[in-house]
Amino acid sequence: RYFHFCKLPGRVMGIRLLRFTSVVILVLLLVAGALTALLPNIKDDKMPNLRREPKTQSQSALDSFTLIMQTYNRTDLLLKLLNHYQAIPHLHKVIVVWNNIGEKVPEEMWNSLGPHPVPVVFKVQTVNRMRNRLQNFPELETKAVLMMDDDTLVSAHDLAFAFSVWQQFPEHIVGFVPRKHISTPSGVYSYGSFELQNPGFGNGDQYSMVLIGAAFFHSGYLEDFQRQPEAVYALIDETQNCDDIAMNFLVAKRTGKPSGVFVKPVDIRNLEKDTNSGYSGMWHRAEHLLQRSYCVNKLVNIYDGMPLKYSNIMISQFGFPNYANHKNKM
Amino acid sequence: RYFHFCKLPGRVMGIRLLRFTSVVILVLLLVAGALTALLPNIKDDKMPNLRREPKTQSQSALDSFTLIMQTYNRTDLLLKLLNHYQAIPHLHKVIVVWNNIGEKVPEEMWNSLGPHPVPVVFKVQTVNRMRNRLQNFPELETKAVLMMDDDTLVSAHDLAFAFSVWQQFPEHIVGFVPRKHISTPSGVYSYGSFELQNPGFGNGDQYSMVLIGAAFFHSGYLEDFQRQPEAVYALIDETQNCDDIAMNFLVAKRTGKPSGVFVKPVDIRNLEKDTNSGYSGMWHRAEHLLQRSYCVNKLVNIYDGMPLKYSNIMISQFGFPNYANHKNKM
Repeated sequence: RYFHFCKLPGRVMGIRLLRFTSVVILVLLLVAGALTALLPNIKDDKMPNLRREPKTQSQSALDSFTLIMQTYNRTDLLLKLLNHYQAIPHLHKVIVVWNNIGEKVPEEMWNSLGPHPVPVVFKVQTVNRMRNRLQNFPELETKAVLMMDDDTLVSAHDLAFAFSVWQQFPEHIVGFVPRKHISTPSGVYSYGSFELQNPGFGNGDQYSMVLIGAAFFHSGYLEDFQRQPEAVYALIDETQNCDDIAMNFLVAKRTGKPSGVFVKPVDIRNLEKDTNSGYSGMWHRAEHLLQRSYCVNKLVNIYDGMPLKYSNIMISQFGFPNYANHKNKM
Repeated sequence: RYFHFCKLPGRVMGIRLLRFTSVVILVLLLVAGALTALLPNIKDDKMPNLRREPKTQSQSALDSFTLIMQTYNRTDLLLKLLNHYQAIPHLHKVIVVWNNIGEKVPEEMWNSLGPHPVPVVFKVQTVNRMRNRLQNFPELETKAVLMMDDDTLVSAHDLAFAFSVWQQFPEHIVGFVPRKHISTPSGVYSYGSFELQNPGFGNGDQYSMVLIGAAFFHSGYLEDFQRQPEAVYALIDETQNCDDIAMNFLVAKRTGKPSGVFVKPVDIRNLEKDTNSGYSGMWHRAEHLLQRSYCVNKLVNIYDGMPLKYSNIMISQFGFPNYANHKNKM
């Protein structure tokens, strides 16, 4: 039959060729199918989840930040806030500083309610200290830290904007809560907010600190903080207060400039009245503000001078929320 | 009498001594008086005016700025504005760019209404060109320039604050009028303000230019402007427009950053309706905005690329005018 192949008319040859090719293709498909079925099901954690690749895995250390949130006796608020903060754009990871000594972290519950957008690490503490949140955590991979109090809710819009501002002012504490110190003729300093007299440098008010309970700052400052005089730690431990004032002293001393840049928040809320725990936060203690003035004066002694500098720059987001929020009578 | 002097009783001697001393004093006073009357009346211009030493003589080139104001056909507004601007804190000198070709500068009237807080120089121009104000004037001694249109009134408070902001951002155009360009799918750019679509980088709007008709910038940029491609001058002369867009291109190209920093003015007014001249400014021409879009595209050709960058930073003064203008619900 093969010899006759060449002499047969085209149509007969075509049908035979077609039949042959079909058989070959069919056999190949069957083999492929068998091989696929036999491939092992790889459950390697390093394999990306192909359903939706988590954005954070690919975010570089420069374009993302780590949220550090210390918590004490307000786990309900913590979890409420974590639902919100875990989804903020450019968030790399959350570090929860667990000051509930002896109490189990809610890791099981957390995992049972996964998957989560970013990794959350619970750092169990051995002593309930205010300055626990200022450790140089090994889990910290990003250049930027966002530090939030466990009763403070700031909108994602505000945070995204403030993060972009921090990226333009990386050596400053960029945040939402400005405070100031003032001099008095006796040389004793006082701490406060706008209700205090303006420092008197031209018109308007000035601020000399931005509180770290709602702010972005460079993770390098956590490293710096480990190298401060012992008296600073003693002061913070004695008052269970003033870690934020100490950080502002550190940054101002380091940069020779105002420590903070104030970004005016559109939506910032204090949720402490929403807690079931009944615990209402350190700032309700009678001596809270007096302590902070006390801390300012102690830190001036420790650092042998007043490094804090004044600023009157208030930053808002152009065209947000109102697209014409810069309109004027011209 | 003299011999007896020693033997006379104390009182008699006292009276004689007193009489003698009185005569001597009187003679001395008369001589002094005569000398004072005879002293020449020195009218040396280098002698300081001891009645009130002008502050500006002692202001260093870093702590003060030069106002450059171009004027055409609105001398009434010019003089009104000069009364205001001549008294702004940290002003070193005023340079009036006189585009009223063939018309005498009001120097006589100006001098007759002196003394003035700062020197005002009238620079007579030979051709009425928009870019006359962008010359590198030899009278310019300060690092900072404040450029104002001759129909724009900005409060002293706004100017003092914006100057302090410029000192923190000296490589930027720090001013009160933000504008932007947008891309379109065709690659053709359009010029406008908030009524144009947001460029789409996250929330809110962005600006990519700050107009120089109400802004501070570094005097070095005037020097730079003299070294631009001929086509830039031709474009500005052809349109009698766009010198400010060209300056923003220059600064953006030079710094690789957004050219401007927008300071939100509290009180900015356009006085053009107040003029007796009936002249109402270039921006009322029908083709004004279309020309500016045209300029953006031409400049992209000339500079072989789009150097303008977006920013959404809006700066206001902390605690002014309202001492609690940063208060929030926390």
